[in-house]
Amino acid sequence: MSIVYLIPLFGLIALLFTAVQSAWVSRQDAGNEKMTEIARHIAEGAMAFLKAEYKILTYFVIIAALLLGYMGASHENSDWTIAVAFVIGAIFSALAGFIGMRIATKANVRTAQAARTSLSKALKVSFTGGSVMGMGVAGLAVLGLGGLFIVLKAYFGAEAGTDEMIKTIEVLTGFSLGAESIALFARVGGGIYTKAADVGADLVGKVEAGIPEDDPRNPATIADNVGDNVGDVAGMGADLFGSYVATVLATMVLGVETVSANDNFGGLAPVLLPMLIAGIGIVLSIIGTFFVRISENAGLSTAAVQKALNLGNWGSIVLTAVVAWFLVNWILPETLVLRGYEFTKGGVFGAIIVGLIVGTLMSIITEYYTAMGKRPVMSIIRQSATGHATNIIGGLAVGMESTLLPTIVLAGGIYGSYAFAGLYGVAIAAAGMMATTAMQLAIDAFGPIADNAGGIAEMSELPKDVREKTDILDAVGNTTAATGKGFAIASAALTALALFAAYVGVVGANGYDMDGINIYKADVLAGLFIGGMIPFIFSSLAIRAVGEAAMAMVEEVRRQFRTIPGIMEGTGKPEYDKCVAISTEASIRKMMVPGAIAILSPIIIGFLLGPEVLGGFLAGATVSGVLMGMFQNNAGGAWDNAKKSFEKGVEINGEVYYKKSEPHKASVTGDTVGDPFKDTSGPSMNILIKLMSIVSLVIAPTLAGLHGNSDHKSSAKKKAPTEQVAQVRSAK
Amino acid sequence: MSIVYLIPLFGLIALLFTAVQSAWVSRQDAGNEKMTEIARHIAEGAMAFLKAEYKILTYFVIIAALLLGYMGASHENSDWTIAVAFVIGAIFSALAGFIGMRIATKANVRTAQAARTSLSKALKVSFTGGSVMGMGVAGLAVLGLGGLFIVLKAYFGAEAGTDEMIKTIEVLTGFSLGAESIALFARVGGGIYTKAADVGADLVGKVEAGIPEDDPRNPATIADNVGDNVGDVAGMGADLFGSYVATVLATMVLGVETVSANDNFGGLAPVLLPMLIAGIGIVLSIIGTFFVRISENAGLSTAAVQKALNLGNWGSIVLTAVVAWFLVNWILPETLVLRGYEFTKGGVFGAIIVGLIVGTLMSIITEYYTAMGKRPVMSIIRQSATGHATNIIGGLAVGMESTLLPTIVLAGGIYGSYAFAGLYGVAIAAAGMMATTAMQLAIDAFGPIADNAGGIAEMSELPKDVREKTDILDAVGNTTAATGKGFAIASAALTALALFAAYVGVVGANGYDMDGINIYKADVLAGLFIGGMIPFIFSSLAIRAVGEAAMAMVEEVRRQFRTIPGIMEGTGKPEYDKCVAISTEASIRKMMVPGAIAILSPIIIGFLLGPEVLGGFLAGATVSGVLMGMFQNNAGGAWDNAKKSFEKGVEINGEVYYKKSEPHKASVTGDTVGDPFKDTSGPSMNILIKLMSIVSLVIAPTLAGLHGNSDHKSSAKKKAPTEQVAQVRSAK
Repeated sequence: MSIVYLIPLFGLIALLFTAVQSAWVSRQDAGNEKMTEIARHIAEGAMAFLKAEYKILTYFVIIAALLLGYMGASHENSDWTIAVAFVIGAIFSALAGFIGMRIATKANVRTAQAARTSLSKALKVSFTGGSVMGMGVAGLAVLGLGGLFIVLKAYFGAEAGTDEMIKTIEVLTGFSLGAESIALFARVGGGIYTKAADVGADLVGKVEAGIPEDDPRNPATIADNVGDNVGDVAGMGADLFGSYVATVLATMVLGVETVSANDNFGGLAPVLLPMLIAGIGIVLSIIGTFFVRISENAGLSTAAVQKALNLGNWGSIVLTAVVAWFLVNWILPETLVLRGYEFTKGGVFGAIIVGLIVGTLMSIITEYYTAMGKRPVMSIIRQSATGHATNIIGGLAVGMESTLLPTIVLAGGIYGSYAFAGLYGVAIAAAGMMATTAMQLAIDAFGPIADNAGGIAEMSELPKDVREKTDILDAVGNTTAATGKGFAIASAALTALALFAAYVGVVGANGYDMDGINIYKADVLAGLFIGGMIPFIFSSLAIRAVGEAAMAMVEEVRRQFRTIPGIMEGTGKPEYDKCVAISTEASIRKMMVPGAIAILSPIIIGFLLGPEVLGGFLAGATVSGVLMGMFQNNAGGAWDNAKKSFEKGVEINGEVYYKKSEPHKASVTGDTVGDPFKDTSGPSMNILIKLMSIVSLVIAPTLAGLHGNSDHKSSAKKKAPTEQVAQVRSAK
Repeated sequence: MSIVYLIPLFGLIALLFTAVQSAWVSRQDAGNEKMTEIARHIAEGAMAFLKAEYKILTYFVIIAALLLGYMGASHENSDWTIAVAFVIGAIFSALAGFIGMRIATKANVRTAQAARTSLSKALKVSFTGGSVMGMGVAGLAVLGLGGLFIVLKAYFGAEAGTDEMIKTIEVLTGFSLGAESIALFARVGGGIYTKAADVGADLVGKVEAGIPEDDPRNPATIADNVGDNVGDVAGMGADLFGSYVATVLATMVLGVETVSANDNFGGLAPVLLPMLIAGIGIVLSIIGTFFVRISENAGLSTAAVQKALNLGNWGSIVLTAVVAWFLVNWILPETLVLRGYEFTKGGVFGAIIVGLIVGTLMSIITEYYTAMGKRPVMSIIRQSATGHATNIIGGLAVGMESTLLPTIVLAGGIYGSYAFAGLYGVAIAAAGMMATTAMQLAIDAFGPIADNAGGIAEMSELPKDVREKTDILDAVGNTTAATGKGFAIASAALTALALFAAYVGVVGANGYDMDGINIYKADVLAGLFIGGMIPFIFSSLAIRAVGEAAMAMVEEVRRQFRTIPGIMEGTGKPEYDKCVAISTEASIRKMMVPGAIAILSPIIIGFLLGPEVLGGFLAGATVSGVLMGMFQNNAGGAWDNAKKSFEKGVEINGEVYYKKSEPHKASVTGDTVGDPFKDTSGPSMNILIKLMSIVSLVIAPTLAGLHGNSDHKSSAKKKAPTEQVAQVRSAK
């Protein structure tokens, strides 16, 4: 059973790697005085936001922990320590955001400086920055989950098949709840921050004053660059930390119920497997990072960079598949049983492969819908010729259409992984998909670092070729950001489904007899409707927040242009910190209501209408959240690249249009609409659906106790897993 | 039992009323030569479209009828006559569209002429036109359903509780399928037509050439006015015909299963009730129309017109509630049982009241979200000050937010009507809501007639005060159109749910044992995802079709402006029919794929994955369709009124903006984006979800037979209803 100690070890390895790489980045040249001055401004702004955000969240964490502790203490299948797990999850999640932000605000200026030498060097610095964040997030997750599991198991004296083990996992759910709550606030708050600053800076700077992007005369430019860090780095870091933990945890919850007789780990192999896959995934991701390099003599093209990243990415995915084969064969027994569904270890491996294939297909489809030169983006470009309105119609149509193939792939993935290994298969498919999160995150995070480097290059008036190099990295970063979102939503859907299954199990195990969630019942269907509505109202709040915060930013920038003498000539100094303060204040204020909706709505529905209606609610929210996520992410990505296409000129009906042409202006409108879609509300969807599932899972024992009645309460307590396997065996 | 003959009689009364009113409209003065010439152009264009559309649909109807006939003949619980019922349903639906179009193209020019006298006269002509359509649609529906029921009952020799009665209703489902399929094509085809012409005419006429709306120099102006008739009149007529039939039918299907012992109609009271309510609703609607009048001395304000319409509308709703009380008390026995759920006749009345309340609340909420001067529209106006993009973000946020309250009302309605009278309650709530369809439709249809009258006034250069009067009617028409959509989507949701319940019953009655639709099963959940995606892809196709057809229209108008000499000076005559042909051709071509998706997807899912997955699919499609419908309808309505607000001037941050200001231009962009939302894809959603449910219901017996296996096939045939009641009674 000592294999369990390997798990936190993997986490420590990742954190060690993080420390080494981080030190390497710090040692790089940070450039001239002007550059470091600007970088300092950005870093300070970013830290100011994080400080303000974490301060508010501290209150939330304390209150939530007290409630959780009380709930845990008052229920036999839970424990007050769930509050401790929750707090640790929240702290780790915050830490993940902090590590990412810290390294990103160091790597940005060093990437700009490296770009003065070569593209290869710039890639190295920015990607190393990204991988510090990726490994940091993954390391914290594995360390936290693995470490807590060991401690709790010892504390409760839990063995496979016992009530103590159920309690251990129930308490561990608190860790995931903490992680995912912070993730939601970080994603939404960061998303509002970055887009309010971006849209605000563009509307006055580019459109009204006619100065270029990242011009130091624009008072909102620092806020804009801070936004890249708090939204695309810290927000995303917390987001993926939460997702990663939720996915592994969901598999563990189902693993506890899975009967794994005669395995070499006291029947715990199905619980350990997801953590081991995650741990090994980290090592394979570290190996993958070494593939990401381009030759010093590579020309200035995006193709070489993209190829290097793909090599790293596919490399780690293929390695994961290979290692998973050996791992599964080694630790699992020949046959397993979950809720009467018997499957083999070969089936478990099959489900992992299904997960990897689904993830890959989702990335490819997402890229198709958002990449330059492909049919969807071209259709938006063509529709820009007849004005703003047709550009918008085109983008909305592309976004809605883009739900078709991913939904079919996803449905096929659910179907396939279930056929292979039942509900455990669905969960392990998601875990397999998420195994290379560290690599995914490294690839995702290098984009905003390069974007920031370009901003610093512009503001410090570095030679034009520096910006050209950072632009190449930025362009590749846009593609990886889009595909990363496709990946995230797919894994979220599978994870939500696994959590959903876990929820049904926990409700059942706590005396509320429920065979499933029957939408044929009127009240469950009512729950399905209300759940489906949540992603709409959540998105509405998020994009409205961006619109309103951007308008406040516009007012402030206009005021500075009006009242600060010499600002346009470059002799008067803009008050950057005023704009930073506006974004900070607005984003923190406006993340509250959406966050509250996510956390409170399942609680209200559950306590008011019972566990089965809550099940319908979760299903509705998951389906609608996945669809709205894909719609918004892809529409936003496609609008963005339609606009970018004009930079090199596009041909519409035989005429070539460039920047500043009328069709280009229409495409800028689309891009601005797409900004909150793709960076605020869209990516929040995957956290939203998982967070609501986790909240439900945490309250499930209490709910079941409260609503259990003569109709529903099981006459006997749920059969222990060992009885269950005996029964299945004897039935053969 | 002779009460059943009352039902077609109500239909005949409605058609008689239609004929009388229609003759009255025809007798009105059609104005001067120029006016009649223009009206002739519009009428010809509209008929040309209808002819082209019905020609294509004839092929579809023949093929579908053959397949249906074969399917019906080969299954014991169905019959080849389902093909006949289908064809009659299709013909009646087409006829409903035709009647509406015919009267609208007569009433439009006569309304323009009446407006030369007084607002009161203009309202009278346009509203009488609308009520011809309303009564025609309702009359055909009641005549068709009632008449067919009598004929089929005699043909099969069916009595309550027998297999023959199940067969009668199964065949009657064919009537609804015919009605709803034509409705979908008419709504989508008409919606594409009207918005392609509208957007195309505006983009070149208003924006590029700078000529006003409905200017006779614009070659697309006739097509634009034709569009109002084919989309807002014929399309809507077929749509509501289909909805009305589907709602009544869904209640009948559940009525057949409902055990109504000791009633005075051979146990058939629950089957007859929805038809009787519909029939009486027609009479009450006729009474309601007499309330709709304003004084000759009424000033030129929208308030008086709105008040008159409200009086008519609320009048018929209150009368319905009162009459329903007596009707229910008279025909139903004290207690009824449906699938083991016992309820009283008081409960049935309660459910009807729930339906009326839900419909009323939906109208009020929809009006709030789309009316001028209210918070949502004001927020869009404010966001227009910072440009096109923020206007769009504002409208999208309003649309998404507008799903909140209606969803809660709807969920409450489902919950409440179920509590009152089980699944029969849910269905009868929808039927109660739809009882005053004739009145609703009259109120809805008068708007496009007035809109057309304004166009004719403009083109024939009538005095300015004529247009002022038609504009007042048009403005009121916009509000009633928006509230009508809120009503339609609510009734569609309840109807879809009733059909869903009926589907589960029919599957069970045909030997496939299914307790419900359990979304906890992976395959059912996969179906839920795919179903949820359908409204997205359907909307995408619809709005893209509008975008592309509008672009073709733009090209043609530009060509005419370029090549026809003297066109701008009014000496050269534009080729109106070329534009009419473009809209006609494009709309018919582009309605095919969305139509095919709606009809084929449930068939494919059902045969490939079985009845329970199809259930999940239907639930997903219903939830997502309702939400997407509300989102798109309300966003479109709010954008429209935000734009209209600029006509009288709006204050933003202390400054007043009028037409042609920059914020107004931004609002025009929003309105153009909203056009396909609110008139093409949005209103199609309610037909889509019902059509897919009806298709599923029709194929249910075949599906159940095909997929029945050892796991699922009931050992014994479903208990006959009489046994069922005995069982429930004895259990007490």
